[in-house]
Amino acid sequence: MGASVPAAAIVAIGDELLLGDTIDTNSAWLGRRLADLGVPVCRGWTIPDAKADIAAAVVRAAALAEVVLVTGGLGPTPDDRTREALADLTGAALRVDRDLLAGLEDRFRSRGYELLPERNVSQAQVLEGARILPNSLGTAPGQAVEVEGSLVILLPGVPGELVRLVEEQVVPLLSQRFAGRLRPLHHRRIHTTGVPESVLAEMVESALPQDMGPVALAYLPGLGGVELRLTARGVDNAEAARWLDSIEEALEPAVREYRYYSDRRDLADALGSALVAASRTLAVAESCTGGLIAKRLTDLPGASKYFVGGLVAYDDRIKTDVLGVSREDIEAHGVVSEDVAAAMARGVAQTMGADAGLGVTGIAGPGGGSDQKPVGTVCFAAYFDGRCEVRRERFKGDRTGIRERAAQATMALLLRMLEAG
Amino acid sequence: MGASVPAAAIVAIGDELLLGDTIDTNSAWLGRRLADLGVPVCRGWTIPDAKADIAAAVVRAAALAEVVLVTGGLGPTPDDRTREALADLTGAALRVDRDLLAGLEDRFRSRGYELLPERNVSQAQVLEGARILPNSLGTAPGQAVEVEGSLVILLPGVPGELVRLVEEQVVPLLSQRFAGRLRPLHHRRIHTTGVPESVLAEMVESALPQDMGPVALAYLPGLGGVELRLTARGVDNAEAARWLDSIEEALEPAVREYRYYSDRRDLADALGSALVAASRTLAVAESCTGGLIAKRLTDLPGASKYFVGGLVAYDDRIKTDVLGVSREDIEAHGVVSEDVAAAMARGVAQTMGADAGLGVTGIAGPGGGSDQKPVGTVCFAAYFDGRCEVRRERFKGDRTGIRERAAQATMALLLRMLEAG
Repeated sequence: MGASVPAAAIVAIGDELLLGDTIDTNSAWLGRRLADLGVPVCRGWTIPDAKADIAAAVVRAAALAEVVLVTGGLGPTPDDRTREALADLTGAALRVDRDLLAGLEDRFRSRGYELLPERNVSQAQVLEGARILPNSLGTAPGQAVEVEGSLVILLPGVPGELVRLVEEQVVPLLSQRFAGRLRPLHHRRIHTTGVPESVLAEMVESALPQDMGPVALAYLPGLGGVELRLTARGVDNAEAARWLDSIEEALEPAVREYRYYSDRRDLADALGSALVAASRTLAVAESCTGGLIAKRLTDLPGASKYFVGGLVAYDDRIKTDVLGVSREDIEAHGVVSEDVAAAMARGVAQTMGADAGLGVTGIAGPGGGSDQKPVGTVCFAAYFDGRCEVRRERFKGDRTGIRERAAQATMALLLRMLEAG
Repeated sequence: MGASVPAAAIVAIGDELLLGDTIDTNSAWLGRRLADLGVPVCRGWTIPDAKADIAAAVVRAAALAEVVLVTGGLGPTPDDRTREALADLTGAALRVDRDLLAGLEDRFRSRGYELLPERNVSQAQVLEGARILPNSLGTAPGQAVEVEGSLVILLPGVPGELVRLVEEQVVPLLSQRFAGRLRPLHHRRIHTTGVPESVLAEMVESALPQDMGPVALAYLPGLGGVELRLTARGVDNAEAARWLDSIEEALEPAVREYRYYSDRRDLADALGSALVAASRTLAVAESCTGGLIAKRLTDLPGASKYFVGGLVAYDDRIKTDVLGVSREDIEAHGVVSEDVAAAMARGVAQTMGADAGLGVTGIAGPGGGSDQKPVGTVCFAAYFDGRCEVRRERFKGDRTGIRERAAQATMALLLRMLEAG
């Protein structure tokens, strides 16, 4: 296949995938990782726990791609057939590797087992001539064998083990094997929130340069906003950076108002960084989001640097008794109102002694809507530096969608205030 | 193929699946739904947006299975090639269906477009002779055609549209086509929490009857616990119920201590139901889980019936100032201690005027661990009816895993107290 770009194929093994007990997240992760490396995935198979079916799929995959990644079927139970299938296919014997066996025995001893369970011995079996790819998180190693000129790599199906093994073993292996032929993808990601995809697309399309060179643009919408992904392919680092810089610069005026920066693709992360940079602390008061904002902020390690605490004021009594929202405000404007949201944001910052406060109150549904305030109506506020900004939105979606969108919009409101200084 | 059980195959279309931009959740959902219906999925393909590749995969799939579900590639953009691929394959012409076109025009008019965008006309194209399967949530209908004796069904790739279309159109179609040959699966699910899979398996294996008849058992472990799934196949409703009842009864002593009941497979739902049944209310005080318990309780509609509110006491000052945890307790035992957890549970119930309270404090990591209190150490308490129960555990996993396990264990503790009365 000369100096062409190498391609990969995936053979995912397991009755549990076909029966839908497990969602195959491995294939998507591998697809992303290999595309970035420069070995795009061109085909995928999902195959039952049956030796002949596995062998047949590997042969087809090897005919199509120079790398075949086989995931799953390396466990210790009788329905784990991948090793045997490859032995049948290649004619290589399966032998027990002494080092692997010793490692397994150690592992089980440290868990209090005197003897290695008989069925786990199979996990120390390797194909004669295979390259062993150590699994630093689990019991079954990866194995790499040649099948009809292609490199077939057996990987564990447990997602955490697979990811680690690919990063530690497979990426270096492929980088070496295809040195000079890899055309890695170069991505630039622009995260936006608070703007519908169609509106963003219109602004972006009119800002894009005529000549995009080697760069393609994708819109990746989610509950938290739309990610613009610029991808340069077929060029080296320096040229990719030049193109990506110039297109990003052209897009800047169109996206500025909606953009946030986070390597984790997470607005909570962007807000946390802005708070740390400003040396300010935050407290949150949530009604309809019910703890979601606090949960998202504390998903991130190090949140204690800026996050003081949160109050989930689900019952109205908590809003008045703990946060000091006035009963008059609730009676005059309703509990879903700009006034109550603002009082919650201010009240929680004061109660918890934080520099900034967020307040959100709304109707997440499915019940509780009215003509004036239909399901999806949310009022939210950010308090910072003695100022309070308030918004009212009607969010689309089911209960989960409304809550996610409300949490995102509330955090974005404070982020914009911090950016404005 | 006579009276054998019919099988299905899935052909999932889309570069975004191969590049990993989208995780293919459709195939898992279809796998589950079709297995339950009695048409198990025996093979899956993931195929790029290329006509020849789509056609070739459909031919292979039709050779293997009596039903072929093709997902994706029905959108309005040039990389949506499924309709054309099937036209090439079957020789059937693509014609614009007047009714579909009128429906599309209406839809766009109602969104404020005067004219249907040219590229959307393709979504009104149907294969000559195909059965049109109306899509009640989106623009592209499903289509069913015969290919070499198999039924090939084209489905939209948008998950919500696919699910609705399968329930409304495909399930009735297959039920009719395979009348008398379907062998639906009958499931019984036993949800457990608080017991490791290996320990549970040992107890379950020794409790299982020798003769399982038509029933198979699967262990489905997750962060929240292990689900036991009993599946009866090949028998009618009445016989399945008899077998499932008798096996469930045999397992009862082994699982009783760890079991919870929820149609949503959600411990928060089980806890909510128990609180509603007991006419009691709940407030929660969270440190390391950072709002996760409150979020999970309020994920469910109707949580306001029993959930009063929550406090995320991330900063220690909140624990003392708002919850009334004593500084002496914190100094004497550390903030991650049984005493502090108990004081949080009691304090939040009293502060918020709830009948029951939960408190959880721990080290979710990655930082903050010590020799005495390594990452994963969590103390949690449930307060109810003047009594407080406290536990200390060391949970495994990363930050997310530790937080999820801690939230689950904390809710389980109260559920057991409520069950005990």
